Amino acid sequence: MAKLWKKKGIKENDTIIRFTVGNDYLFDRRLVKYDCLCSIAHAKMLNKIGILTDSEVNAITKTLEEIIHIDSKGKFQITPNDEDVHTKIENYLVEKLGDVGKKIHTARSRNDQVLCTLRLYYKSALKDIEKIVVEIINALKIFKRKYGKVQIPGFTHTRKAMVSSIKLWADSFIEALTDELKFGKSVYELIDKSPLGTGAGYGVPVLKIDRNYTKKILGFKTLQYNPIYVQNSRGKFEGEILSFLTMIMYDINKLVSDIIFFSEDDLGFIKIPVEFTTGSSIMPHKKNPDVFEIARSKYSKLLSLEMRVKILPSNLISGYHRDLQETKECVFEGFDTVKETLIVLANVLSKLEVDKTKAHSLLTQELYATEEVYKLVLEGVPFREAYKIIGEKYLNE
Amino acid sequence: MAKLWKKKGIKENDTIIRFTVGNDYLFDRRLVKYDCLCSIAHAKMLNKIGILTDSEVNAITKTLEEIIHIDSKGKFQITPNDEDVHTKIENYLVEKLGDVGKKIHTARSRNDQVLCTLRLYYKSALKDIEKIVVEIINALKIFKRKYGKVQIPGFTHTRKAMVSSIKLWADSFIEALTDELKFGKSVYELIDKSPLGTGAGYGVPVLKIDRNYTKKILGFKTLQYNPIYVQNSRGKFEGEILSFLTMIMYDINKLVSDIIFFSEDDLGFIKIPVEFTTGSSIMPHKKNPDVFEIARSKYSKLLSLEMRVKILPSNLISGYHRDLQETKECVFEGFDTVKETLIVLANVLSKLEVDKTKAHSLLTQELYATEEVYKLVLEGVPFREAYKIIGEKYLNE
Amino acid sequence: MAKLWKKKGIKENDTIIRFTVGNDYLFDRRLVKYDCLCSIAHAKMLNKIGILTDSEVNAITKTLEEIIHIDSKGKFQITPNDEDVHTKIENYLVEKLGDVGKKIHTARSRNDQVLCTLRLYYKSALKDIEKIVVEIINALKIFKRKYGKVQIPGFTHTRKAMVSSIKLWADSFIEALTDELKFGKSVYELIDKSPLGTGAGYGVPVLKIDRNYTKKILGFKTLQYNPIYVQNSRGKFEGEILSFLTMIMYDINKLVSDIIFFSEDDLGFIKIPVEFTTGSSIMPHKKNPDVFEIARSKYSKLLSLEMRVKILPSNLISGYHRDLQETKECVFEGFDTVKETLIVLANVLSKLEVDKTKAHSLLTQELYATEEVYKLVLEGVPFREAYKIIGEKYLNE
Amino acid sequence: MAKLWKKKGIKENDTIIRFTVGNDYLFDRRLVKYDCLCSIAHAKMLNKIGILTDSEVNAITKTLEEIIHIDSKGKFQITPNDEDVHTKIENYLVEKLGDVGKKIHTARSRNDQVLCTLRLYYKSALKDIEKIVVEIINALKIFKRKYGKVQIPGFTHTRKAMVSSIKLWADSFIEALTDELKFGKSVYELIDKSPLGTGAGYGVPVLKIDRNYTKKILGFKTLQYNPIYVQNSRGKFEGEILSFLTMIMYDINKLVSDIIFFSEDDLGFIKIPVEFTTGSSIMPHKKNPDVFEIARSKYSKLLSLEMRVKILPSNLISGYHRDLQETKECVFEGFDTVKETLIVLANVLSKLEVDKTKAHSLLTQELYATEEVYKLVLEGVPFREAYKIIGEKYLNE
Repeated sequence: MAKLWKKKGIKENDTIIRFTVGNDYLFDRRLVKYDCLCSIAHAKMLNKIGILTDSEVNAITKTLEEIIHIDSKGKFQITPNDEDVHTKIENYLVEKLGDVGKKIHTARSRNDQVLCTLRLYYKSALKDIEKIVVEIINALKIFKRKYGKVQIPGFTHTRKAMVSSIKLWADSFIEALTDELKFGKSVYELIDKSPLGTGAGYGVPVLKIDRNYTKKILGFKTLQYNPIYVQNSRGKFEGEILSFLTMIMYDINKLVSDIIFFSEDDLGFIKIPVEFTTGSSIMPHKKNPDVFEIARSKYSKLLSLEMRVKILPSNLISGYHRDLQETKECVFEGFDTVKETLIVLANVLSKLEVDKTKAHSLLTQELYATEEVYKLVLEGVPFREAYKIIGEKYLNE
Repeated sequence: MAKLWKKKGIKENDTIIRFTVGNDYLFDRRLVKYDCLCSIAHAKMLNKIGILTDSEVNAITKTLEEIIHIDSKGKFQITPNDEDVHTKIENYLVEKLGDVGKKIHTARSRNDQVLCTLRLYYKSALKDIEKIVVEIINALKIFKRKYGKVQIPGFTHTRKAMVSSIKLWADSFIEALTDELKFGKSVYELIDKSPLGTGAGYGVPVLKIDRNYTKKILGFKTLQYNPIYVQNSRGKFEGEILSFLTMIMYDINKLVSDIIFFSEDDLGFIKIPVEFTTGSSIMPHKKNPDVFEIARSKYSKLLSLEMRVKILPSNLISGYHRDLQETKECVFEGFDTVKETLIVLANVLSKLEVDKTKAHSLLTQELYATEEVYKLVLEGVPFREAYKIIGEKYLNE
Repeated sequence: MAKLWKKKGIKENDTIIRFTVGNDYLFDRRLVKYDCLCSIAHAKMLNKIGILTDSEVNAITKTLEEIIHIDSKGKFQITPNDEDVHTKIENYLVEKLGDVGKKIHTARSRNDQVLCTLRLYYKSALKDIEKIVVEIINALKIFKRKYGKVQIPGFTHTRKAMVSSIKLWADSFIEALTDELKFGKSVYELIDKSPLGTGAGYGVPVLKIDRNYTKKILGFKTLQYNPIYVQNSRGKFEGEILSFLTMIMYDINKLVSDIIFFSEDDLGFIKIPVEFTTGSSIMPHKKNPDVFEIARSKYSKLLSLEMRVKILPSNLISGYHRDLQETKECVFEGFDTVKETLIVLANVLSKLEVDKTKAHSLLTQELYATEEVYKLVLEGVPFREAYKIIGEKYLNE
Repeated sequence: MAKLWKKKGIKENDTIIRFTVGNDYLFDRRLVKYDCLCSIAHAKMLNKIGILTDSEVNAITKTLEEIIHIDSKGKFQITPNDEDVHTKIENYLVEKLGDVGKKIHTARSRNDQVLCTLRLYYKSALKDIEKIVVEIINALKIFKRKYGKVQIPGFTHTRKAMVSSIKLWADSFIEALTDELKFGKSVYELIDKSPLGTGAGYGVPVLKIDRNYTKKILGFKTLQYNPIYVQNSRGKFEGEILSFLTMIMYDINKLVSDIIFFSEDDLGFIKIPVEFTTGSSIMPHKKNPDVFEIARSKYSKLLSLEMRVKILPSNLISGYHRDLQETKECVFEGFDTVKETLIVLANVLSKLEVDKTKAHSLLTQELYATEEVYKLVLEGVPFREAYKIIGEKYLNE
């Protein structure tokens, strides 16, 4: 199908088309609904300012709702020849509605359209993440309810430090993830701004559009006012989203690192049910914590996606560059990875078991050294003196 | 001076001491005041719970205020032998107050003390950044007031796209930086939590401390409750701060990239006053925009500092590790770099000049192509038809 | 199909299976041939040391060659249920050969098998990269032959500096890429070591295997001797390969950055044929250099893949961890991206045109300032004096 | 002192000077000798082509050797006012020799001069790294000689896998570091190219210089021919050097991660002598492996320095930009960090002790499961059958 910007008499070069389209036709599948919602809002605005008649806007709206319906059944296919979801939908409208379809792109650019579509998707995906983080928190609470009272060694420097407990340990991740839930709201608010109506970065000349109207229909909290900033925020907002996702995975990375360490053969007081382990092709006894290791590895994946999005626009001048097209796939991959990992973990976390006997056997005397110091303090010995007295006791152990 | 944790009969190894101390004695200079404030609050709390008498807490408070005073004149020196600011201050107390000084570290660990000190410093530094961002915004407003009406070409894909203006351009950065000001508040709120009283990550046993009391004295918004999370947030909070600073530099990177491009010899409509340029050792005619190039380069510096802080704790289990010591120098360097760069830029921005004649000469016909399309649209031609008609006109230009 | 390490009586958990398998079944398609080659070599060695009879090794070899043949027609399918290419192939052997198939995995682990397969693939892919880099060099030579003599301004600090030429410019990339060709050989040599026979990282006990024999059959230059190092090099070797690919993209990033700048509307002396440009959905006149922008963006992609592979294994102890599984997809994606980008560029580069008239018009007087200085030097004026004299001439321009 | 490129009648702006000079005056201290060597070679070449007389070249050479001598005693001071080492040295020559000093910069630019100086320094620093890596290898060999025969558990997935030994473990790092020694030679060869004579990136017009002559005097293996490539390799070569240093730290990161894990309280069979540990301010019993943790953290430092150097030049066109000035400090910091860390480690490694009794107690039955399988194989049971038989035995352990 012809590109909308195809130039008369110029034959398209296949290699170029394939290279520039990339995998957009795949990535864009998740955007169908949001692109239709943007176009419906845009059509209503065009009607309000007199560019589209009532019957035209009705026809367009009906057709776009039809697409949403087809897509909800997974049947709205996008192929490499369609370029991307936006072209596909516009072509669909033209096919169905003729000249009326040719009017939908009035007063907008692919640039503000894409950004508007992506923001709606991002907002929805952030809400999903929020829900799954809550699920992880709940799994930790269930685990805590079962085993919270079990005392375990607390480590610093990978060395036994003081007495800890499953409760204290689980709570640390509950508080960490709760911080993320809150921080996520700031990221959500940052991007909750309508870019629609800013054209290709320099506004819409001649026509008197009503940006507040589409903003309201689409449920954005506010406008993103400056058209150049709208373009420049591409990459920047993606970077903020990925930075947020990275920090969730930071917490997860620590959580599963603990689980892997706490379930080590000789040390381990956490038991991973065997159906959640995998084996070795050569060593028949192995029960490996692959699930937790793969979850651990996703931190580096998110971190590198964040980096890519942040490196990509560096040293480029203002205004859209095609390079920025690559930012969306990073965010998509980031969302997918975090979602999948958290769902699996929420599933597994509540099934972990704690070996109380093993935990108890690890609670050796030195874990109480600080308590001994404080008991002397209560007897009136200055802290540093008390510290020295107890210190000598443990010197040669 | 002896380390507080020195073990009886064990000779310290000089190489090890030097390697583990690193540059802490240098980095820590900025922390003197904040460490004293933490210790004053801690001493007051120890008094409240009966560990320190009234006269003891008064002596400690007076001595710590003395240190703040000495430091405010730049005369509180820390040397490699002092290990770090915290040891230096505790040793100073012991020297001055004898046994009373030996009580100050009761019921705290270096871990929660360091974190508390750093948070106070970070909070203050974030406030500073806020002020300087406001200065950049003001410089842009002054520039806009002078030249705002001048029309300039707007670029997409580094190609002339539509008509823009100095006002539109300056506003894009004002809105971007205003977003940062707002986002900065979320980061501030994230870290505005008192870690004092969480010890080495497993709380303070035996003694009944009052964490809310120190929180209130130090002006934190809330407690960071879980002691393990307090330790695990080291690296995480630093990562969030650096991510924030990186995004400020993202805006700056684009701003100066534009200035460098907009002042290029043949294209340039922005003029950099010659006293803000530097020369070449071989080419006598050169007036180079080094200031803007160095500012541009700082984005990669901030990005790499952010990365370092985010890579460092990966795959480590919960609890403090000495590795985390390295995170503070990254944040310090990040704050210093951003502050210095923004101050210089705020200074230079308002001095830039715009060459109206040059700008005017660049406003060629194709910048109006979209306007031509919309005029046809107003005459009733469907957008895609109008687009094609105008498109052919520009095909061979 | 059952995993080889399946434990009796333990039901596999579907979520876990899906999560741990990931996209291996997709990534692994390219490995079929190399895994078969490894297995053939391994079978021959097992025969040599008396584990397999002559007829057993013949049956295995024949079946594996059959798989290579099926795969060469794209008909050897791997599904998520197959776990990965290695399990699929072993299961195929068991299905066809019964007990004989069950012997193929004697004296090896999935660990050394996977590494051996990957190395053969990496070696082949590096050879491919070499060929395509040569093609880019050739395209640059063709371009140089056509336009080499055209003089163009040379820039420093994005400012006109001295006279340059298309020849000088093209040669800079030819020399840069030639350096890469050479450096690539070091990377090739680094990884050209047989890991087969090192088992899961602790060697093969009891059985007397002959590692040199498989090394020779597979064409490796040398053995990688230490079994623990074999495992620890996973991630490390991948990091070196990606660092190499990144540096190729570094050259390409600069090449296309130049082309985008050199073809800018007002400045541009390079012309991109319109069939290699793309349009805008709103501005009918636009001819955008998307191909070059997408190529430019791939540098950040490669850099972030390199980072991911280098971050992933940090702070992990020796020995295989499932996290390392993620490294191969990064290398695959890296190779694919570089290959695709270079092929497109080689195609386009030789079609670029140079506008001599435009180039000539940009050769303004100041580009010759250094020549003026040197003429004074030849007349006996000390350089710094001559520099000052000429400098004053250009001060107010 | 006046900048060499100072423009008549233009007052320098102090803020700008300070910002552009940055910390060059500090970083450059290590370059004094190398800059002098470059200038001596350059002067000799100017004499050869008739720009300098014999007495002039002798005077210059003598004065530069004088500077080398002063610097060797640490007395050649560079202050912020001097801009950098190169300006300082040229000014020194002018001060001492008058007009003769003003001739030294004939036929070169600060650009090729700086690059030439840096390359000589880099080459020397790479040689130093080589020596220290050899020292680490030797320390490992000493350790192996003492404890090599001690059997220890070998881990995969942080789970006990098969029997290993101190010898096997130490050898893995010896082979890894030996790989680095070899790879380092490729990096050395990559940068062993003379850039002198390429001016500011567009060669030296008018004068007939002899680049091969300076190359020979300075001991470079070959010329870097293309002047534009010389400039574009800034950042690229630094990236390759840092990538190399990063990979050394990759090996070190794993080595010390093992040591930290292998010396954990309950698991540990490696003992760190107490004088190489540090204590806690609150827990008197702690003996923390800070040295190894700080060493571990340096991997993220090197990785982020590498990243910074690789991000910095992205998307910039050919030719020098002041941004590139920032690359050298990254390499300096990289070299310093690696050197310091390796020296400390070489010192500590040979002092580690192994607790044979503890190691022995960890050698539990499952470590021999693979041996049991292979014994069945030798009795004629197909591997996969043998694997299943032994596997059942360990299922419920």
